[in-house]
Amino acid sequence: MKLLTYMKQIGQQAKSASRLMVRASTAQKNHALRLISTAILREAPALRKANQMDMDNALSAGLAPAMLDRLSLSEHAIQTMANGLSEIAALPDPIGEISDLKFRPSGIQVGQMRVPIGVIGIIYEARPNVTVDAAGLCIKSGNAAILRGGSEAIHSNQALSKLVQEGLLGAGLPVHAVQVLETTDRDAVGQLITMPEFVDVIVPRGGKDLIARLINESTVPMLKHLHGICHVYIDDRADLSKAAAIAYNAKCHRYGTCNTMETLLIARPVARQILSTLAGLYGSKQVELRCDMEAMTLLNGYPHLVTAVEDDWSTEYLAAILSIKIVAGVDEAMEHINRYSSQHTDAIVTEDYSRALRFMREVDSASVMVNASTRFADGVEFGLGAEIGISTDKLHARGPVGLYGLTSVKYVVFGHGEVRQ
Amino acid sequence: MKLLTYMKQIGQQAKSASRLMVRASTAQKNHALRLISTAILREAPALRKANQMDMDNALSAGLAPAMLDRLSLSEHAIQTMANGLSEIAALPDPIGEISDLKFRPSGIQVGQMRVPIGVIGIIYEARPNVTVDAAGLCIKSGNAAILRGGSEAIHSNQALSKLVQEGLLGAGLPVHAVQVLETTDRDAVGQLITMPEFVDVIVPRGGKDLIARLINESTVPMLKHLHGICHVYIDDRADLSKAAAIAYNAKCHRYGTCNTMETLLIARPVARQILSTLAGLYGSKQVELRCDMEAMTLLNGYPHLVTAVEDDWSTEYLAAILSIKIVAGVDEAMEHINRYSSQHTDAIVTEDYSRALRFMREVDSASVMVNASTRFADGVEFGLGAEIGISTDKLHARGPVGLYGLTSVKYVVFGHGEVRQ
Repeated sequence: MKLLTYMKQIGQQAKSASRLMVRASTAQKNHALRLISTAILREAPALRKANQMDMDNALSAGLAPAMLDRLSLSEHAIQTMANGLSEIAALPDPIGEISDLKFRPSGIQVGQMRVPIGVIGIIYEARPNVTVDAAGLCIKSGNAAILRGGSEAIHSNQALSKLVQEGLLGAGLPVHAVQVLETTDRDAVGQLITMPEFVDVIVPRGGKDLIARLINESTVPMLKHLHGICHVYIDDRADLSKAAAIAYNAKCHRYGTCNTMETLLIARPVARQILSTLAGLYGSKQVELRCDMEAMTLLNGYPHLVTAVEDDWSTEYLAAILSIKIVAGVDEAMEHINRYSSQHTDAIVTEDYSRALRFMREVDSASVMVNASTRFADGVEFGLGAEIGISTDKLHARGPVGLYGLTSVKYVVFGHGEVRQ
Repeated sequence: MKLLTYMKQIGQQAKSASRLMVRASTAQKNHALRLISTAILREAPALRKANQMDMDNALSAGLAPAMLDRLSLSEHAIQTMANGLSEIAALPDPIGEISDLKFRPSGIQVGQMRVPIGVIGIIYEARPNVTVDAAGLCIKSGNAAILRGGSEAIHSNQALSKLVQEGLLGAGLPVHAVQVLETTDRDAVGQLITMPEFVDVIVPRGGKDLIARLINESTVPMLKHLHGICHVYIDDRADLSKAAAIAYNAKCHRYGTCNTMETLLIARPVARQILSTLAGLYGSKQVELRCDMEAMTLLNGYPHLVTAVEDDWSTEYLAAILSIKIVAGVDEAMEHINRYSSQHTDAIVTEDYSRALRFMREVDSASVMVNASTRFADGVEFGLGAEIGISTDKLHARGPVGLYGLTSVKYVVFGHGEVRQ
């Protein structure tokens, strides 16, 4: 079959399935999730075998160790996928919720009902666990999903796809509610993002470059995040022990995540004191510090010291590297953040009430924090359950996108025969 | 100044103003709205003079009477604009609202804060009242606005622009929070919709063709509606007196609005009876009925009867024309609606509890109604206050877009020194 024909068929099947998914009951959806979870555990040996094919191919193709790690379906990874589905089944069903139902002077009652978006296309790297997470979230939120994982994971994804479809069938749901593309043709992505007649939203998960390219080519709306340039600002009224713990955790808890701090801003009056503490903490992890002139002076003698250049303020290191700038106070800090932040997550450490409230209101990022580590910007930590990504868009979903981010609302009117006067 | 330079300056000024608007107090914003309202009444003679220049030019250019009507600033129109601003001032301020603030197991408190979108570009026809409505909604929601009205209204819009900026200044708000483009160059629209670095969202109000073109060219997200193909389905368990009143009102209350019914679906068992009532009602207004074969037979003798062709089911007449189709029941009705509806507003008339709930859940439109006229799909009727348009998009705002549709939410975290384990 030609690619275009294949993709159109996938799209049509997804559209039809989405019409059935909108009326699936909570019990049916949860039943499907539990069936898939059980099947994954039962079929663990077969999954590992399929995964081994992908791993062998990836090894001979010379994939980087970090990518191999993500591709691998260890026993632990399989257990985690299965548990994830049970957790999604345990979440409340957002679909059909009606909020703010109120009588209007005309006599009609108006409210907003939460509904699925429809068909969601998800494009991601060679990470088979994303296949299962994404399928689970889309099923629970009553959407149909078209999944396109990195081609290196094709055997793992096809094996998982069978189990997902088996679970859907077992629960009486349409088997095309989740379709994993069977082709590794790169042009399939180009097709997927230009079928607005079938696909309602695209969720890209992957590198900056991939996403930037998709933005340019897509004719379907996207829920995306480009990158995470997250800041912590230590105010001169900060509790410095909290400040040290947060600045250390935000950088060193994990280097490769998008909610990791990349730039530390420090109010001048406390800079010397906090930097002497932080030098010890960061030094123990060999963190390279890229500093403005003032911080350079204060950190004199730190073994991994580099002078920051303009580009540092807009670089996502994803590594044991941190840029540091000394500022006059909260105003200069917010100015810097609103200029360089990727609007992902930014935090202030302060005991000053008014500055805390101002920072929270005026910093225009998806997550804004007072006295907490940026590493908390995460669906599970925020109480949303599993997340499909973290959006830095301003419209629709912003921040961690869980079940609710995969839904929309419509107005519902309960009338009693009213007509407009 | 060259157009590109001019537009970039407008964009930069809007961006800067939006940073100040985010921290404007409710009192300041309401003060500005009331100052503008007062100024509009005080300067009514000057406004009418500016408007007369536009009207004279439009007359000699041979503008259609309907367009002249929209362009005209009568005393009544001026009073309505001034009142509209007072009404917006009286609405609750959505900005800064924090919802669902909850403690998480880690100790952090997480909630969602409602925030302005940022910079909103609004493109509309030669209707000076839209300039004031849009300015009012954007000010109240803490956004900066770039307004581009139809060039025929340039003198009226410039006169209104001065009063808006005077009000902003008087309330201590940035004068560039509302900028009405001073150029009538058509390329300005093309610039406005391709400046994502300055503009966060575009709201187009205008004809289908304009909007379709903007969709293709815009690199900025849009809140748009293309058209309104609204349905009423009369179920065989309908209260037929309610059904007749609703079907008459939905078509004949106003022909030119997007929430007017364009297709009537009737369940076979009640078709003969309801059509004999409706023939009298529609006949009194000379409504042309475009019918499928069954309805043709039942309406035999109706003076304005036409056989429907396939195109009729997807045509927005905006006139005294209605297409009618007889269906087997609620399933066939929903199938027709999900196929031909523009997902604007669709209604069922029934006394059957389960069918009412099914229709409400399964019809995928911005507003779904039971036993009420589609004409209620309106910001004021829904209790949102003034609206800037009705969105048929699925993401972000859906249905009438009022103040809330011009806002976004971000996550806020109130911490106490927590770090991620």
